[in-house]
Amino acid sequence: MALKTKEQYYQSLQKLHPTTYILGQKVDNPYEHPLIKPMVAGVAKTYDLAHEPEGRKYLVAESKLIGEEVTRFVKFYESPDDLLAKVRMLRFLTQRIGTCFMRCTGMDAINSVGIEAYDCDQECGTKYWERLLNFVKQMQQNDLVVFSGVTDVKGDRSLRPSQQKDPDMYLHIVDKNDDGIVVRGAKIHQTGSLCAHWGLIVPTREMREPDKDYAVCFAVPVDAEGVIHVYGRGTLEARELEACDLGNIAYGKFANMVIFKDVFVPWEQVFLCGEYEYAGPLVRHFGNFHRHSHGGCKCGMGDVIIGAAALAADYNGLSRVSHINNKLAEMLKTTEAMYGCSIAASVESVPTPSGIYVVDPVLSNVSKLYEGKELHEVIRMMIEIAGGMVADLPSDKDMENPEIGPLLHKYLKGVEGVSTEDRIRLFRLIEKLAFESRDIVSNIHGAGSPETHRLTVLRNADIESKKKLAKNLTGIREEKKD
Amino acid sequence: MALKTKEQYYQSLQKLHPTTYILGQKVDNPYEHPLIKPMVAGVAKTYDLAHEPEGRKYLVAESKLIGEEVTRFVKFYESPDDLLAKVRMLRFLTQRIGTCFMRCTGMDAINSVGIEAYDCDQECGTKYWERLLNFVKQMQQNDLVVFSGVTDVKGDRSLRPSQQKDPDMYLHIVDKNDDGIVVRGAKIHQTGSLCAHWGLIVPTREMREPDKDYAVCFAVPVDAEGVIHVYGRGTLEARELEACDLGNIAYGKFANMVIFKDVFVPWEQVFLCGEYEYAGPLVRHFGNFHRHSHGGCKCGMGDVIIGAAALAADYNGLSRVSHINNKLAEMLKTTEAMYGCSIAASVESVPTPSGIYVVDPVLSNVSKLYEGKELHEVIRMMIEIAGGMVADLPSDKDMENPEIGPLLHKYLKGVEGVSTEDRIRLFRLIEKLAFESRDIVSNIHGAGSPETHRLTVLRNADIESKKKLAKNLTGIREEKKD
Amino acid sequence: MALKTKEQYYQSLQKLHPTTYILGQKVDNPYEHPLIKPMVAGVAKTYDLAHEPEGRKYLVAESKLIGEEVTRFVKFYESPDDLLAKVRMLRFLTQRIGTCFMRCTGMDAINSVGIEAYDCDQECGTKYWERLLNFVKQMQQNDLVVFSGVTDVKGDRSLRPSQQKDPDMYLHIVDKNDDGIVVRGAKIHQTGSLCAHWGLIVPTREMREPDKDYAVCFAVPVDAEGVIHVYGRGTLEARELEACDLGNIAYGKFANMVIFKDVFVPWEQVFLCGEYEYAGPLVRHFGNFHRHSHGGCKCGMGDVIIGAAALAADYNGLSRVSHINNKLAEMLKTTEAMYGCSIAASVESVPTPSGIYVVDPVLSNVSKLYEGKELHEVIRMMIEIAGGMVADLPSDKDMENPEIGPLLHKYLKGVEGVSTEDRIRLFRLIEKLAFESRDIVSNIHGAGSPETHRLTVLRNADIESKKKLAKNLTGIREEKKD
Amino acid sequence: MALKTKEQYYQSLQKLHPTTYILGQKVDNPYEHPLIKPMVAGVAKTYDLAHEPEGRKYLVAESKLIGEEVTRFVKFYESPDDLLAKVRMLRFLTQRIGTCFMRCTGMDAINSVGIEAYDCDQECGTKYWERLLNFVKQMQQNDLVVFSGVTDVKGDRSLRPSQQKDPDMYLHIVDKNDDGIVVRGAKIHQTGSLCAHWGLIVPTREMREPDKDYAVCFAVPVDAEGVIHVYGRGTLEARELEACDLGNIAYGKFANMVIFKDVFVPWEQVFLCGEYEYAGPLVRHFGNFHRHSHGGCKCGMGDVIIGAAALAADYNGLSRVSHINNKLAEMLKTTEAMYGCSIAASVESVPTPSGIYVVDPVLSNVSKLYEGKELHEVIRMMIEIAGGMVADLPSDKDMENPEIGPLLHKYLKGVEGVSTEDRIRLFRLIEKLAFESRDIVSNIHGAGSPETHRLTVLRNADIESKKKLAKNLTGIREEKKD
Repeated sequence: MALKTKEQYYQSLQKLHPTTYILGQKVDNPYEHPLIKPMVAGVAKTYDLAHEPEGRKYLVAESKLIGEEVTRFVKFYESPDDLLAKVRMLRFLTQRIGTCFMRCTGMDAINSVGIEAYDCDQECGTKYWERLLNFVKQMQQNDLVVFSGVTDVKGDRSLRPSQQKDPDMYLHIVDKNDDGIVVRGAKIHQTGSLCAHWGLIVPTREMREPDKDYAVCFAVPVDAEGVIHVYGRGTLEARELEACDLGNIAYGKFANMVIFKDVFVPWEQVFLCGEYEYAGPLVRHFGNFHRHSHGGCKCGMGDVIIGAAALAADYNGLSRVSHINNKLAEMLKTTEAMYGCSIAASVESVPTPSGIYVVDPVLSNVSKLYEGKELHEVIRMMIEIAGGMVADLPSDKDMENPEIGPLLHKYLKGVEGVSTEDRIRLFRLIEKLAFESRDIVSNIHGAGSPETHRLTVLRNADIESKKKLAKNLTGIREEKKD
Repeated sequence: MALKTKEQYYQSLQKLHPTTYILGQKVDNPYEHPLIKPMVAGVAKTYDLAHEPEGRKYLVAESKLIGEEVTRFVKFYESPDDLLAKVRMLRFLTQRIGTCFMRCTGMDAINSVGIEAYDCDQECGTKYWERLLNFVKQMQQNDLVVFSGVTDVKGDRSLRPSQQKDPDMYLHIVDKNDDGIVVRGAKIHQTGSLCAHWGLIVPTREMREPDKDYAVCFAVPVDAEGVIHVYGRGTLEARELEACDLGNIAYGKFANMVIFKDVFVPWEQVFLCGEYEYAGPLVRHFGNFHRHSHGGCKCGMGDVIIGAAALAADYNGLSRVSHINNKLAEMLKTTEAMYGCSIAASVESVPTPSGIYVVDPVLSNVSKLYEGKELHEVIRMMIEIAGGMVADLPSDKDMENPEIGPLLHKYLKGVEGVSTEDRIRLFRLIEKLAFESRDIVSNIHGAGSPETHRLTVLRNADIESKKKLAKNLTGIREEKKD
Repeated sequence: MALKTKEQYYQSLQKLHPTTYILGQKVDNPYEHPLIKPMVAGVAKTYDLAHEPEGRKYLVAESKLIGEEVTRFVKFYESPDDLLAKVRMLRFLTQRIGTCFMRCTGMDAINSVGIEAYDCDQECGTKYWERLLNFVKQMQQNDLVVFSGVTDVKGDRSLRPSQQKDPDMYLHIVDKNDDGIVVRGAKIHQTGSLCAHWGLIVPTREMREPDKDYAVCFAVPVDAEGVIHVYGRGTLEARELEACDLGNIAYGKFANMVIFKDVFVPWEQVFLCGEYEYAGPLVRHFGNFHRHSHGGCKCGMGDVIIGAAALAADYNGLSRVSHINNKLAEMLKTTEAMYGCSIAASVESVPTPSGIYVVDPVLSNVSKLYEGKELHEVIRMMIEIAGGMVADLPSDKDMENPEIGPLLHKYLKGVEGVSTEDRIRLFRLIEKLAFESRDIVSNIHGAGSPETHRLTVLRNADIESKKKLAKNLTGIREEKKD
Repeated sequence: MALKTKEQYYQSLQKLHPTTYILGQKVDNPYEHPLIKPMVAGVAKTYDLAHEPEGRKYLVAESKLIGEEVTRFVKFYESPDDLLAKVRMLRFLTQRIGTCFMRCTGMDAINSVGIEAYDCDQECGTKYWERLLNFVKQMQQNDLVVFSGVTDVKGDRSLRPSQQKDPDMYLHIVDKNDDGIVVRGAKIHQTGSLCAHWGLIVPTREMREPDKDYAVCFAVPVDAEGVIHVYGRGTLEARELEACDLGNIAYGKFANMVIFKDVFVPWEQVFLCGEYEYAGPLVRHFGNFHRHSHGGCKCGMGDVIIGAAALAADYNGLSRVSHINNKLAEMLKTTEAMYGCSIAASVESVPTPSGIYVVDPVLSNVSKLYEGKELHEVIRMMIEIAGGMVADLPSDKDMENPEIGPLLHKYLKGVEGVSTEDRIRLFRLIEKLAFESRDIVSNIHGAGSPETHRLTVLRNADIESKKKLAKNLTGIREEKKD
């Protein structure tokens, strides 16, 4: 039963009862809430596609762990080909969903935790790797969704976890006993925490000895006692609340804050507990993997953005205009650079002792730098091509008003052969692509912020060997003398 | 009585009864509607500032026409100093209002119409200039707000007005009699049409002989019979509808579609009627003037964006971080280039036969190109500096919830010495600055789209004389021979 | 004897007597000329490295054709791995040579001609493929260097070959007989034509029926009768002529014009002769292959540029300065994007009927776009980091002057521990990297100009399928109706 | 006799005998040396133009100091109009000379020294201002050229002057007596030191108490005893040495190193001597003034670059191609932004106690940032438009060779109606504009390096007031509390 259907996924959610607050209200069944539903639908779509012939090719692989077919979302990266397949799967899915579908954070976290759990066991005699294998088996056997809890709220960003005035600004262990540990803290920007069955919680940064209690990694069900999901507001909510003028008519994204109010975690779900030296490598692996994921999904997003812009040109009567073609080429340049560098990061991946492959860190971070810095310009070019109607179209409710509806249908018509209704649908999609804060901010800050990517590129690029190349060409000998 | 107070402005609106539709509903008093009110407040603030000592210096000037003090918003540009004063006024106001306050379209239209009305009278024996002077006098004497109706809906953009299948895709004259004319069409993106008393309607493009009936320019009260204002949706409406999580707590922007359903205009309000040769120059003047206006107001917007980003760095505990300073410098570079080129365009302005000065077209369009292309990157840098919380903060309603409110206050705290409430207020402002569609799209498409600006730069830059410079340096003689 | 040594390469050149003009003089032995020698040395280095352990891994592969080890420079691309190996080989070599070593144009041409020769034979019953195999065997067996003659002088670029006033502005067939053909024309920017043994001449553009005589492809020895090599001037010649202040002390680049003054070519060396439909695909393959080559070599160049910049910072006493690190990261971003997209273009290559694999055209052209547009900025950043001394250092001759030499040694000293001599050597390298016209112009125009790459990206990107993605998300159905 | 003719300028140089080394040789009459002559010709042209009607308008102004007409190059900036006139003069001259003409460094230095000399006198009771007035009078009365010696060699850039191992890495006072001072050190990048009559030597950075002896400012004749000029190599010297393939056929630029080997300076020529607090403001004024100068001259350079690119398109048969027009517009955008910000910096200038006006530092530094960062891209676009022939044209000597000359004339022909000779002349100019190291490096490092400009922008932009604007809009009150 490793591959659930869409319906089975929906049924599985009915058994969960996460503590949820949305816009000041405690909500009993968040899965039906208009602000949450569109993202659940996106995740459901990933289940659906795993059963379709084209989707299967991208999504489904054999698990050595359970000897069955599983989705790649709960599989280890056991070869460069697994990493190539991941990038292509994420592009394929985003092309069809047009926004986040949330399952890659868990996938990237499973692999990151795996590498360090294995290493820690080897060096410290712990048993984390075996526990993790059991957890992953369970996820595979039941085809479950895992979100990864990475981003702490952080308080004063110039201070380390143990230096904060309030010790809870990073999630940490507040108690331990024979059965397990108790943790406190809050993770923010938790994309789709309410679409998942489990959370895999990892440290958000490297830790030092005094930060020991913050070096903790564990799995927890989304409705464990003390776990509180608080909805974070996005930009286009008035549309979702009214189910109107949506743009992307089926799918959407939300991002929660998840508060851990003294949550108990049994030992079998704990994968790091005080071994602070592993926190840094773990989160760096996660970062590199997740930037590599963005290379696939955001390129898929780019495909939609480019398609929407080109279609807007058609609908405005401006197909084949030279400056528009020039912009489309520039948009392709950025999106394909993101994709190309992620593909290359897969090809140049190397195995770790755990058997899990890590991507080339320079290439995966370069890919994300293009996303963080240039994708915003791709979006600007889409707006430029589409024209001013992205800003301020009347509502569908106006279109249906008997007095002004006919006038609006008349005046909002574009090129012959395209209905006013279709033209408006397209402009609403472009509006969504341009102004949905969760997507746009994810481009910039998702999987770390650009400065982190720059730093990672720099640290991994072996500048010293490049200096030697320059020296050799000039005839400067290695031993410097005066 | 040339300078109204804020209260007098509000009173004056009460006498108007424009036909208005908002989200499918006919609305009786739009001025009180939560989606319209914030922009009316912005316009009201401009009245208020004209009575404060610092504001007076920027806003108030002597009118030769009526021999009284008037606001610059209804004054002709009679010298380079008037144009310099305009840029500085707009920067000053935007710094205080943080979004559009709408009065510059009317100002720019009055001047554009003036130049061509004068020329047309000289060449065709019409009487437009005198009529316009009377109209402007009336605006000055009563300190009224004028919106300029420029942007037609345009239909198929590859076709000229007279080539469209539906002849109404550009506003045109459908009837004429002894008393006046009757016009039909629709203008879109009419920023603040409901904050104004009058509209000054101008052609949106150059016209040829077959487009004669589209070469029409006139003034009309916003509540004239047949004038219908339809609200165009923006991105952050859920906030305004709930008066919550606003960011910019007092001011906002909307942009309407304004439909002209066979509107009668008496001759004394008509300033162009079929003289198609003047349509192109008129709208080109408007474009150049309005790009020049953006140089002031969007630089003021840039000041707010830069201030918000720098403050966010403080509140996150990251003041004086090197990469943030580097970004602030880049943000200043773009905004000051916009401002600098607008100042220079004023200095290099030249008089027309009407006595009205026109700005240097290359410099004013270069200024707008920086806005259209680079200001989006300034906004991205603001998001990058501010961090992920721009995407998805819980609502103030959650903050007030007795169960989770205290937890949120705890976990959303940044640096010591700044309240969580203030931090959230700031992130809401940044969200507004980053995602308010009317402002962002105005950066790109306001006063024409970047391709128009490029073309205008190119047409006015005298490339031939630059070729001669190159030839002279190489010793190529003018007469080419083989 | 498939792999020559460096010495054997030099000996082989002694047997050639190409007609050569340099700065107005006919030169008997061009290989010893100070302006030609540095590039011959670069090619010789590629021979040398094929015999060293590390170089072997990159350069040497088994040829199915002759059953022996050959250099990849004369091998067909028979798998994605061959294409990956090529990119890595070119990066490896450029890191060690620091400029062009010329052998990839021949390699790319052999493969491009191969694909179309095969197709033409299948469709037209010609025998080009077999002839080409014989030619390639000969190159492999003797380990020879092939330059590809692509770029015609072109005359008036708005006219097709057959429309030019002077019919010789594109190389064409002027006579045919039983033994072979006679060709006339001129190819410009022929990097390293004097380092090669043979030229493989291909059409520079697509051809139509009237251009039939221009659709010609053939191999010719560099010293065939009627082939004239004319040296094209570069920027830093005064240094090479004096063997002083060189920067890159061993290697350099030149680019000749090669005139074909009625050159006879026997039929066994002719691979296309009038089948105009194959000219376009052939040159498009060449373009895509060669842009893919640039992804490797120019990334290697980027490694040298980055190393030189980082070393300059050290030598100036400015290691670890924040803004310099930031620039190094940006430099890495561009160079790794070029590399990453070339790697990805290899991974996504597909076989043609000939068995030769073609790279993904979108990814290979995107790689080149980064080179054409962004590498110039990488170079600017190197200059910015290095500081003003790149502009105007005194000569080594001044350093050796007994009166001022000691003063210069004193005053041009940087950080302690680095000799003034080494510092100057480095600045000379940076000067060479920044101002050698053949390298810089190759970044922009090599393998076609940026507009060609944009167009190729656009043509191959399947915009229509992206439009469908957008439609699906909005609910627009395929059949448009009004 | 305040305005010399060109001939009088040449005569005046004959009286000077500066100690000069060029490429390892001591040179007796440097003014006739082929590497120096072209820049002397540029300076001579500025004399010439002051006597032509159009040039007069830009170059000549009334001096209050001597009550005569003088060139603006030796005049104080006594109003915003003086600063506007300066920008326009520099643009006008560069359009005609196409490279540096050197006279603005002296002009900017005179004004910078003036401001601080005046302030120092007021605060410290010194007599520098009067001495400076006498020096300026002498320059005006004899219409002399002044170069400003700013840039010290600097040694280890992480150390202050007094911290350097070798105390001579910044110019300093080594002795003082009743008659004057003795100075030692070296200034590098001294554009045109051999075209000037006098040098005005100023500190290159701010100084602290231990750096006291480095806080020195004085005037010195270019041929004073102990002043040694050493020629710094540029890129295209082979052309100048052969007087062939020049591009810019009349004018060129060089930049010397000027060594001060214990040079005696009498007190009347000393304008600062140990008052270290004035060194920083002095060089900051110089920087701001000189960045403002670049706004004019580099915009003139941009005019030539744009003209050359547009002409190359014509000569290639590619006039009016859409992507070329697009690039020309982008090129105009950058150059006009430089100009516009310099004009605006003049308009917003303010007086100092000395009566000398200082430019707005934000706007003048923003102007230079566009030059430092974007002008390189303008040059890249010129190369892109011009095509590959910029890289490697045969020499004029080849053109004149009887055997290949006719072939080259045939094959290097472009569009009909333009001679091959003229086409080559143009490509040589483009080569010069693209690859002359002194000009390109001056774009980046002239008047300080981009990081200095960023820092200056940041320091002068009043970020705190912008933070307040943001606070006001959000309702955050000034007193922070928790």
